[in-house]
Amino acid sequence: MSAPLDASKLEITKTTTPSEPIPKEKLVFGKSFTDHILEIEWTKENGWATPTIKPYHSFALDPATCVLHYSFELFEGLKAYRDSNGKIRTFRADKNMERMNRSAKRAALPTFDGEELLKLIDQFLLVEEKFVPTGYGYSLYLRPTIIGTSVGLGVSAPTKALLYVIASPVGPYFSAGFKPVSLEATDYAVRAWPKGVGSFKLGANYVSCIEPQMEAAKRGHSQNLWLFGEEGYITEVGAMNVFFVFKNADGTQELVTPPLDGMILPGVTRDSTLELARSKLPSSEWTVSERKLTIHEVKERAAKGELVEAFGTGTAAIVSPIDNIEYQGESIKVPVAAGSSGELTLKINNWIKDIQYGDDTFKNWSRVAQ
Amino acid sequence: MSAPLDASKLEITKTTTPSEPIPKEKLVFGKSFTDHILEIEWTKENGWATPTIKPYHSFALDPATCVLHYSFELFEGLKAYRDSNGKIRTFRADKNMERMNRSAKRAALPTFDGEELLKLIDQFLLVEEKFVPTGYGYSLYLRPTIIGTSVGLGVSAPTKALLYVIASPVGPYFSAGFKPVSLEATDYAVRAWPKGVGSFKLGANYVSCIEPQMEAAKRGHSQNLWLFGEEGYITEVGAMNVFFVFKNADGTQELVTPPLDGMILPGVTRDSTLELARSKLPSSEWTVSERKLTIHEVKERAAKGELVEAFGTGTAAIVSPIDNIEYQGESIKVPVAAGSSGELTLKINNWIKDIQYGDDTFKNWSRVAQ
Repeated sequence: MSAPLDASKLEITKTTTPSEPIPKEKLVFGKSFTDHILEIEWTKENGWATPTIKPYHSFALDPATCVLHYSFELFEGLKAYRDSNGKIRTFRADKNMERMNRSAKRAALPTFDGEELLKLIDQFLLVEEKFVPTGYGYSLYLRPTIIGTSVGLGVSAPTKALLYVIASPVGPYFSAGFKPVSLEATDYAVRAWPKGVGSFKLGANYVSCIEPQMEAAKRGHSQNLWLFGEEGYITEVGAMNVFFVFKNADGTQELVTPPLDGMILPGVTRDSTLELARSKLPSSEWTVSERKLTIHEVKERAAKGELVEAFGTGTAAIVSPIDNIEYQGESIKVPVAAGSSGELTLKINNWIKDIQYGDDTFKNWSRVAQ
Repeated sequence: MSAPLDASKLEITKTTTPSEPIPKEKLVFGKSFTDHILEIEWTKENGWATPTIKPYHSFALDPATCVLHYSFELFEGLKAYRDSNGKIRTFRADKNMERMNRSAKRAALPTFDGEELLKLIDQFLLVEEKFVPTGYGYSLYLRPTIIGTSVGLGVSAPTKALLYVIASPVGPYFSAGFKPVSLEATDYAVRAWPKGVGSFKLGANYVSCIEPQMEAAKRGHSQNLWLFGEEGYITEVGAMNVFFVFKNADGTQELVTPPLDGMILPGVTRDSTLELARSKLPSSEWTVSERKLTIHEVKERAAKGELVEAFGTGTAAIVSPIDNIEYQGESIKVPVAAGSSGELTLKINNWIKDIQYGDDTFKNWSRVAQ
């Protein structure tokens, strides 16, 4: 009898040594954590055990635990925001649950009822309420994770796993307004490929991106613009999705991002950007496209003055403006008409931010923890 | 000042509760371990710390440790064999050190002097000497591993890492002689890609292979034969390299394995098979080829009666004979002329086994721990 994940069974043990939140101007992304951890153990035999919130603690892992050898690990990243009434809100967390279950299936790790985990996360947020900082750009970053915890070196599906959530208070990604970044278009290493696992949020997709990122940094660029294939298809930027804005000869504009063809992570901010753009931009003036595009198209349209803006999207920054792309020794300059970003980049940032902080509503995208 | 790995600094703390080795007929691969663990910590600031051999113990890992999120992990697999004089030998372990350093560089983990780690492994083997079982097919499996141990959720190169070696006594892969396996030729999932990380021994390459393996198992096949591209190139089998033997019209034969084009793990048994075949097979009768081959070639040559044998190679089994390949609903039958394997498969197994157990010598391929 394999038990489902059941939020109603939650057991909470609070720390006897509560800490004070770090002053918000001193926050560094992912470096400090709240006082507790949400954990649910899983075994193949018994399914999901009793969910617990306990004082934050280290894991005791046998050196032969499968997560340390065969990368049985996946994660999600989402944030909790404090609204003007002091309530704690999450943004489209159901999308994270959906993706987490897709990742789990692909990684031979256990799946679960996403709504049950959201209820547990709500309870976790209420316990950690004092760690959710106040102010635009401030939030509590949540890191749901599943690791395989079977002990043994045989390469097979884990029979034991641990789902856990930790939380880190974070400040604005760009502490003094936007700062546009320079990219190196990378074709000597590939992040993902057709029929691979690039569309799943597995730890396995991250390790291989660090060496190329260090190489790009040596040459003065912040991130890699990941190209694919002889055609030079644009896929992602660093660990974010990527968007371009082009101006057409007839005065209309196009917002473009690569399609979900199995190589692209289905980002929540990517999806939100597309949906809000389709909803808010006048269709007489704008086309919103999920289509393949190449570095050559970007280069040619930049040369013709038709490249209007470019930006990455992700949970950490919402949008990250791009002002330069280095490709085979040449610079493609990207305009930043609004000062530090393009105009649409800034609009999208504000649309999403307003929903996240509860100042605007759109569908059921914002959920109050209660 | 970043210290190099220095075997002369080894500190040994023996267990006060030594265990008795499990009777060898009860051994299961990678399930039981010896009494100790070899460990060396690394920090970006100070380099490699004092190597230690201590009682086997769990690691205390913060839930935000980078190995659990971004797959900063790599490993090697090699074996120690007891020779007829009772000495403990390793087989071409310098090749494992070479590959481990290649993996480390690609994974943004620390590199080290391979000969120093081999000296430490020799000392570890002398400490664990009683756990090295006697008899052909029996050995002590060694698992050198490096994990990133920095704590924090920023995606960047680890500034802390742990290199460790654990050891598991193992019996013959095929306990009652060879047992040929059936493969499912897999084209709906892709293990590796040009300019990807398939040629490095990273944990990241393993997690994605489990779900397809479970799918193949449901249909009665032991492993996946990983195909690549529209051409149906053959790359690897399960977590092993793969070889085919073809008979030519003029009576000569060809031993073929895919070339090291960046998608293939450079297996030590693969390399040994090639070198021994080139050295021992008469060149008037045999061609030994590292070349691309497709599932279509295998199918066509099987239909013409020119497919003579096929086998996987790896440290666990040396060779693993193949008797069937299922491709798009059709079975390609592979002869097993020597009963449970092809004749060359059996020969290669014995050539390598004899060197591993010190019954034959070839170059400097066998190293006595002392």
